[in-house]
Amino acid sequence: MTTVGILGGGQLGRMLAVAGVPMGVRCVVVEPAADPPPAAAAAEVLSAEYDDSRALEELARRCDVVTIEVEHVPVESLAWLAERVPVRPGPEVVAAAQDRWAEKQLFARLGIPTAVSGRPELMADAFAEGTIVKRRTGGFDGRGQVRLGPSASHADLLAAAAQITGPCLAEGLVRFDRELSVVAARSCDGAVAVYPVVENRHRDGILRETIAPAPGATPDAGSVVIRLMEALDHVGVMALELFEVAGALLANELAPRVHNSGHWTIEGAVTSQFEQHLRAVCGLPLGDPSPRGPSGMVNVIGVEPDPSAVLALPGAHLHRYGKAARRERKLGHVTVVGVDAQDRDDRMAAVRRVLAG
Amino acid sequence: MTTVGILGGGQLGRMLAVAGVPMGVRCVVVEPAADPPPAAAAAEVLSAEYDDSRALEELARRCDVVTIEVEHVPVESLAWLAERVPVRPGPEVVAAAQDRWAEKQLFARLGIPTAVSGRPELMADAFAEGTIVKRRTGGFDGRGQVRLGPSASHADLLAAAAQITGPCLAEGLVRFDRELSVVAARSCDGAVAVYPVVENRHRDGILRETIAPAPGATPDAGSVVIRLMEALDHVGVMALELFEVAGALLANELAPRVHNSGHWTIEGAVTSQFEQHLRAVCGLPLGDPSPRGPSGMVNVIGVEPDPSAVLALPGAHLHRYGKAARRERKLGHVTVVGVDAQDRDDRMAAVRRVLAG
Repeated sequence: MTTVGILGGGQLGRMLAVAGVPMGVRCVVVEPAADPPPAAAAAEVLSAEYDDSRALEELARRCDVVTIEVEHVPVESLAWLAERVPVRPGPEVVAAAQDRWAEKQLFARLGIPTAVSGRPELMADAFAEGTIVKRRTGGFDGRGQVRLGPSASHADLLAAAAQITGPCLAEGLVRFDRELSVVAARSCDGAVAVYPVVENRHRDGILRETIAPAPGATPDAGSVVIRLMEALDHVGVMALELFEVAGALLANELAPRVHNSGHWTIEGAVTSQFEQHLRAVCGLPLGDPSPRGPSGMVNVIGVEPDPSAVLALPGAHLHRYGKAARRERKLGHVTVVGVDAQDRDDRMAAVRRVLAG
Repeated sequence: MTTVGILGGGQLGRMLAVAGVPMGVRCVVVEPAADPPPAAAAAEVLSAEYDDSRALEELARRCDVVTIEVEHVPVESLAWLAERVPVRPGPEVVAAAQDRWAEKQLFARLGIPTAVSGRPELMADAFAEGTIVKRRTGGFDGRGQVRLGPSASHADLLAAAAQITGPCLAEGLVRFDRELSVVAARSCDGAVAVYPVVENRHRDGILRETIAPAPGATPDAGSVVIRLMEALDHVGVMALELFEVAGALLANELAPRVHNSGHWTIEGAVTSQFEQHLRAVCGLPLGDPSPRGPSGMVNVIGVEPDPSAVLALPGAHLHRYGKAARRERKLGHVTVVGVDAQDRDDRMAAVRRVLAG
């Protein structure tokens, strides 16, 4: 049996742990939250901060490999672990993904077009189309961001930055046609597997729905994520969020981990992103990322639906994370796989109706 | 969150527990084995005999419903529980399935053709085609059975019975064309869902492979298992093993639980038999039992394969039960889903080769 340590015990850790059971992979998560976290359903939980030396020592002693479910963990903890046990992805990959400025520099170095050339300092006025002032590190689901209109001055930028803790980055607002993402994996021996590009629908900065594969023609995002994984010597799953603008792709953000926009793969692909990540970090061969059919995922946000109502929908798969309900909190998701795109769309519409109550 | 108590913590309990996690169903198993059983990977384990009063009290206190993963549990325990908490399937269903003679009488009462009219006592000589002397209760995977040729005498039958503990049953040997089974489920409100009939290949009394759906035309087994579930007022999954003889079906044995011949449903059907059983016993709507494509399952028996070799096969899904290797012991299974029957057959052949070492 292989034991995998995971920093983070949320729903991603939970789905990793569940995927590990059939393969004989046992997960041990480190999670600072006081209550039993979602991962407790299928993993052993070490209740500790991510930099707790006793917890890290225990991980190093008991695990064959250590990975992450969130990228916002102390790089120092990963570096300490990496001297004692394989850490996949490595600390430097996580560091690159934590800092939006470092990420932008990486994209530039690899010649990957990005939305804007973000600025490390708030030196000038806002971008012509509007500006988003963001934390360089941390913050997700639209938190830690301030949006400014095209007419914002330097003083407006400074005022926005004052509302945010820590160093900031100014990004130009992009008028995109749609948001896409691609999830891929790279194994210890450098093999890669790429899932189909998907379309994501956000509202208030939170992912609401994923359509897999993305409808219509999509530019080649697979080669971009492969270039990133190879440049970083990444091992595990990586997700890359992109904007499509007039048929071209602009890289937005990378996540060196399993990703909300890949949840559809549990039922919708031959190998789920969770099994894939465990295969990769455990030094096992990658699995087939082929889709089983047109899939859709709808996030459950803020309010839990009646489980019976969801499960009464033909072919609906309910995933509850076991978290207390809170406004704008991701509490679960529902996936469907259609016989064709229209069937998938109809099934998603039915899910949406049930979730709306 | 719903808590389901399960008598038995083997691989079936484990797969039930794993299926429960996404739905917010937590499983607590009672398991007498000394070592951590397979279900420990995703369920809480009460380490106790099935008739341990403290364990049963804890189940009754903590669980919303109690079910089984093996039918050879004391009916008295189920009856005691049933006075305190819903037990699904009910004690009388389990009792009927425990005793091969009661089972045969049930088949006869419902007009379901069986292989032979089994005899409750060893009164006469062997059947013309040969005889199997079996325990009336207990024994599975060919254990607790003695086979006798056509020429066996009454003394031979008595000698065979002397090798077996407990009351015996003599069954006539059937020359069947193939072995089939059908897995179905019935919900609390009487709704039913039936998986496609599958073909099973046994060797030495142990299931080796399942082909789903069974190749070629199959007689209607769905109506038979529905009749059985309704007659017994069964709730949960039920499996019925059958012989096909010249295009007709003869009932062999029923199991009021998830079944080895339904393992293919995890990857091969929209709703797995494990999720289906939990939906049924928890009073939730049944899921779609439609197959995702032609599937095959190969049991891992006696010797664990190299996991890497199995996972390197495109589309192979490895299920390891976490049990110590022992001759003729089911240690896991591998499933494949093909784009068509030929593809499925090719994939199964590849799995067979890897398992043969």
